[in-house]
Order: sequence, then C-alpha cells, then structure tokens
Amino acid sequence: MRIELMPQNETSPDKSTPGETEMQCVILESLAFESGESLSPVFIAYETYGRLNAKKDNAILICHALTGDAHAAGISKKTGKIGWWDSMIGLGRAFDTDRYFIICSNVLGGCKGSTGPSSPHPVTERPYGLDFPIVTIRDMVNAQVRIVENLGIERLLCVVGGSMGGMQVLEWMVSHPEMINGAIPLATTAKHSPQQIAFHEVERQAIMSDPHWNSGDYYCGPLPSRGLAVARMIGHITYMSDCSMAEKFGRKFTNGCRPCKFSADFEVEGYLHYQGNRFVERFDANSYLYLTKAMDYYDAARGGKLHEAFAGMRARVLAIAFTSDWLYPAYQSQEIVSACKLAGLDATYCEVNSTCGHDAFLLETEKQTHLIRHFLETVDRNGGMDN
Amino acid sequence: MRIELMPQNETSPDKSTPGETEMQCVILESLAFESGESLSPVFIAYETYGRLNAKKDNAILICHALTGDAHAAGISKKTGKIGWWDSMIGLGRAFDTDRYFIICSNVLGGCKGSTGPSSPHPVTERPYGLDFPIVTIRDMVNAQVRIVENLGIERLLCVVGGSMGGMQVLEWMVSHPEMINGAIPLATTAKHSPQQIAFHEVERQAIMSDPHWNSGDYYCGPLPSRGLAVARMIGHITYMSDCSMAEKFGRKFTNGCRPCKFSADFEVEGYLHYQGNRFVERFDANSYLYLTKAMDYYDAARGGKLHEAFAGMRARVLAIAFTSDWLYPAYQSQEIVSACKLAGLDATYCEVNSTCGHDAFLLETEKQTHLIRHFLETVDRNGGMDN
Repeated sequence: MRIELMPQNETSPDKSTPGETEMQCVILESLAFESGESLSPVFIAYETYGRLNAKKDNAILICHALTGDAHAAGISKKTGKIGWWDSMIGLGRAFDTDRYFIICSNVLGGCKGSTGPSSPHPVTERPYGLDFPIVTIRDMVNAQVRIVENLGIERLLCVVGGSMGGMQVLEWMVSHPEMINGAIPLATTAKHSPQQIAFHEVERQAIMSDPHWNSGDYYCGPLPSRGLAVARMIGHITYMSDCSMAEKFGRKFTNGCRPCKFSADFEVEGYLHYQGNRFVERFDANSYLYLTKAMDYYDAARGGKLHEAFAGMRARVLAIAFTSDWLYPAYQSQEIVSACKLAGLDATYCEVNSTCGHDAFLLETEKQTHLIRHFLETVDRNGGMDN
Repeated sequence: MRIELMPQNETSPDKSTPGETEMQCVILESLAFESGESLSPVFIAYETYGRLNAKKDNAILICHALTGDAHAAGISKKTGKIGWWDSMIGLGRAFDTDRYFIICSNVLGGCKGSTGPSSPHPVTERPYGLDFPIVTIRDMVNAQVRIVENLGIERLLCVVGGSMGGMQVLEWMVSHPEMINGAIPLATTAKHSPQQIAFHEVERQAIMSDPHWNSGDYYCGPLPSRGLAVARMIGHITYMSDCSMAEKFGRKFTNGCRPCKFSADFEVEGYLHYQGNRFVERFDANSYLYLTKAMDYYDAARGGKLHEAFAGMRARVLAIAFTSDWLYPAYQSQEIVSACKLAGLDATYCEVNSTCGHDAFLLETEKQTHLIRHFLETVDRNGGMDN
C-alpha cells in the first residue's frame, strides 16, 4: 500500500480554535468492500487538530454524520469555512487540542474529498455513478482503520460521533474493539427503525423522481437539484423539533414577492427552501443515496443480539441522547447502553434536556462539553477496562 | 339559488352498514370565497345515511380529512368501495343511522365530486388549475352551510371530523355557533405549528418539482404522478407512529426483484411505494396543493385569542386526541379544550391510548364509539347549552 501524507496543519497556540486547517488525503492502493467488490485507488480525506504525542496514545477519531465532512474544526484554508463541530474542538474545549490529537475523515462514499460515486473511475475517468459499490458503515470504518494505522496509532483514546457518526462508533466497538479505549455514540441507534428507514426512502425517492437524476448518470448534464433540495428539506424537518421550530419561526410570514399561489408564505417555508437550495451546491445526490442506504442497512448486532456483539469489548462507553430528538429517540440510546451493561461494559447513559431535536448533538456545546471532558479524562487516566 | 337534489339513498334496515350508497350533488348558483373571488356554479358532492326526522333535529355533519371524500359509509354504488369511516356509521354504531341523519360532503377545492381546481371552468371548459381561487377552511364550511340549509335543517345535532375535518368543526363553532348543538373535533388543531406547515410544504415541493406539474396545467398531458406519490409517502409517515411502523413492518425485507441498487428493500419501503402509487390514481395534485395550504393558513382564532373566538357559543364539545399522534400532538387538542373552558363552554377532553399515530381517529373504532355515542346521547337529550 502506498500512503501519501500531505503536510499537517499547525494549531494556533494562542487561541482556543485550531485556526486555519488544511485537508489532507491518504491514498489507499485498494480497498475491499463488504459487498465483495473492491476499488483501487481509494482516496480518504481527513483533517487533524492538535499533536500526536510520542506514545501515540492521545488520538481521538471524530466520525461525521450524513452530510458532514472532514472539516470538523478551525477555519478551512481552502474555503474559509468554520468546521461543523468547531465549538467542541480546540484549546480548553471538550476535545482539547492541547491534550489530544483529533482526527476527522470524510466517509467512504461521500463527496467531500473521499472516494465516492462522484469520483472519477480510474480507467474511464467518468464518475462512478451507480457503478460505485454499495457502501456499508463497516466499509467506512475499515477505511478509517487504514488512516489510523498509517498514522502509526495502535489504539485510539476514543472514537466519537453523532447520528451516522454514532453508527460508525458502534461499528468500531463491534469490529475493532482492541483498537479503542473509549467510545461516545451520540444521538444514534444500533439499527434503524422502520420510521427512520421510511424518512430516508422518501428522501431517496425525491432525488430519484427528479428526471435530471437520470439513473445516477447526471455529472455531464443538469444536476437533480430540485429532488436533492426536497430531500434535504425533509431531512431538515426531522433534525429539528416541534418546539425548536415553534421557537425559531412560529407562524410568522415572510416578506417579499410571491410569484405563484404556492410560493413560501411562512418563514419556516422560506428557511427550508434556503436550506434545500444551499445544500445542492455542496452535496452530491448519489452520495446522499449511498450514505442513507448504508444507515438503513446498518445493524450493529448483524441480526443477532446486541450485547453478544459487544462481548469481550474493553472500551468505556458514554452514550448521550437528547430529550427532543424524535428522529433518534432516547430509547434507541438506552438500548445501546442496556446491551453494553449486559456485556459487562463500563457504560454511562446521559439524556440531555434540549429543545433542539436531533440537531442537539451539534448545538448543545456546553452540556456535552461537561460530560465528554470528564469521560475523556477518565479514559485518558485509566485506559480501557483491561488497564 | 337553484338547488338540485338527486334521489337519496335508502338504508338497509337489516344490517348495521348503510348498505349501497349513492353520491348526491347540490349545485350552488354561485359561491363567494374568502379571498373575494366567487365562482358559479359550484357543485358540492355529498352522501347521507339514515333518515332526517320530521323535526329535522337529528342531523349530524361529518367533515372529512385531507384526502377523504363524501363517501364516509356503506358501499358506493358507483365504485363498490366501502366508506372511509364505515366502522363508525350504521345501525348500532357510534353514528347510529337508526337514530341520526348523517351528512358527509366532499370539501370545496377537492376532487371527488365537488368543484375544485380539476373541475372545468364553465366558460372555457378547461380545468381551472391554478386559476382556482385560494380555498380556506371557512370557504369549505360556507359550502357545507348551504347544503345543510337546503336540506331544511336549521341546526345540526352535531358536527364532527378529524384532522382537516376537525378544523372544519372548529370553524363551525366560530362562524356558525347558532347552527350546532354539539361539536367533536378529533386529532386536530386550531392552527398549524411550523412543523405541520413544514411537512405540508415539502409535500407541495415534491409535487411542484415534478416537471409534469407544469404550473398546475397538466390535465391534457402526463400527470405529476411521481411528485404526488412522494408527497403521499411523506404524508403516510406522518400519519403513522414509530410504534405502529415497528409493529407492522419491523426491519423485514421485501421479496421480489430489485431492478436497481436503490429499489425498495424493506417492507416499509414497499408499503410506502404502494400507497404513493395508489394515491395518484384517485387524487388530483392541484387539490392536494390547495387543501394543504387551506390547512396551513387556518387559524380558528384569526390571530386573536381562541377563547374569545369561542365566546357566546352554545354547543357542547368533545375533543379527542391520541397518545401516539405526533403530527397533531395532544397539546393542540388540550389548547382547544382550555379555550372552550375559558369561554365557559361545556367541553370534555379525552386522550385515547393508541399506537396508531394520527391515523388513530380512523382506526380506533371501539374506543371512539364509547365516547362519541355517550356524547351524542347527551346532546340529543339536552341540546346545546342554552336548552
């Protein structure tokens, strides 16, 4: 395997933010997928914050959610944008860059630097489209394992993530228990309920109903922007809560012209339109299909019992759910923790009061910081359960 | 006004069902809309079950929900289909046809016999499309008032309905309090929350994103079937509950071929596809836009306080909510009842335990029958609060 590392970014010592960050990329000569197919080469984009210590035992892997990317913190040198979890990562923050070495990679199948359906096929040089293999959560984690190994890290201090990121955390627990001392699954589930599958399916149908989708072969023509925008709008409703929408919008009307009888009247409609339209500028419709399907297929227990899947694990676990998260309801996190307990693990469950819905794991900085900082200190001090 | 009544159906005396039913139609020479526009003529389709007594004081009006129609009970002579609330209407049922005269009309703006955007313009003979005036819940009720008046009924024993039907019930309470002795709003709200508006808006966007929608002018060409199917699929998720989906589908896979990577794998997906595809055979996309918008705009209190809108009303009120209905959460029914109490009304609130979600008002026959039968007996015996 040939590994190519681009120069790592420097943290700015006098500020809490990691400052300007630069995307790096590892090139894997080949990667076998769970489906039996394999691709070569495979690019995995990632960023790091803080410094890996000499013992290489201070590394934390952050796994992003469905539409996230490797740019978790700081200001992107390329785009000028702030990372999606910047409030949690930096000097003195929950993931303290003075103490820990933070890694965040874009998932396999994504469209933000890692190889996915919009990437060019190495021979034809045309985007894979639907020729891209079905991606699973396990495939995403296998790609992350390769990055971690190639940074010379034998064991992660902790792996953390919310939503789809939480599924990756569970997959690390199940498939690579010897490589992690701590695990923080946030606002997630060990397997999707039919309601969660149903929301994803209508989002996919919105995309595939757009004639520009063209069976996934749209890269040389107009993009399926309207379908992808509708998918994103549906998603956005499920990420908020009845309460947070009421607080944010109420029944206020928008200002401005209404070119048609069914234009957006209410502020909440204008907000959804804005979010939908912005999304199509930054996300690939086929990636949306592949990643939502990976989530729907995922079952941490592989059809068996979850506590049996966790047997023999040594990592300490902190699971966090949020009271108003109706997309990933608290009972799903409770099931994870019950299975951990049944498997004899050191597992803690916290249910955070929040009106922010599923988005809470991105927004409730202060409450999560208290919980996570303390948990990381425990893991850092004591290691996994075998230490 | 010229009124044309088609022959009323006969009830079959030896069975609990109303038996074979026939749609009737009243033709209003003109109808003024709340928007200021007016149409002429306007057709309103309706069915009746049971017999109007000599005093004409045993009439109950049933208001249907978004995608319902006038065929509430019995077997349609024309289609052979059973009415959407058949389990609640008939001899010995909640709405006992041996005792009450039941009326159910298709809403103005609908597509099941009443004038709506798919109806032909009387001059051009082309469907109205988006030239149809904006319809409000008040407009729907005004059309119902005309039917009731033309049946020679001065006061209804009761008006009842769930969801959008419940909004019509509230509008009867606010606008025509002198014409009703009882009111049963089921699984409804006095005004939509931003979350409810948001779901409707993405459903509308799914329709309007279909290029066949063609700004509502699709009646001579291909229909916006894919968009309407996606809208219906979204709706269906919101009508069920996490629990009812888990009970009905779990994570079971469908059998059969999968022509593409993103075909329906899970039973819940197959179910949604089936429901979406069936819906486009029976419903008009423009009616879907108009009716959802009527619901979103509706505010029983007209921007003021709900108890003030109810002041002076004499009808007795029974409001029913369902524990697993997350689309029209119980707090919205509680707000209605609180406002009734503040206005000095005789109002009862019942929260029915059910796993059926919003669909509970269509499915929980037994529990609703107990509550409604008793309520109707009270109203029948005592009349409104002034009796």
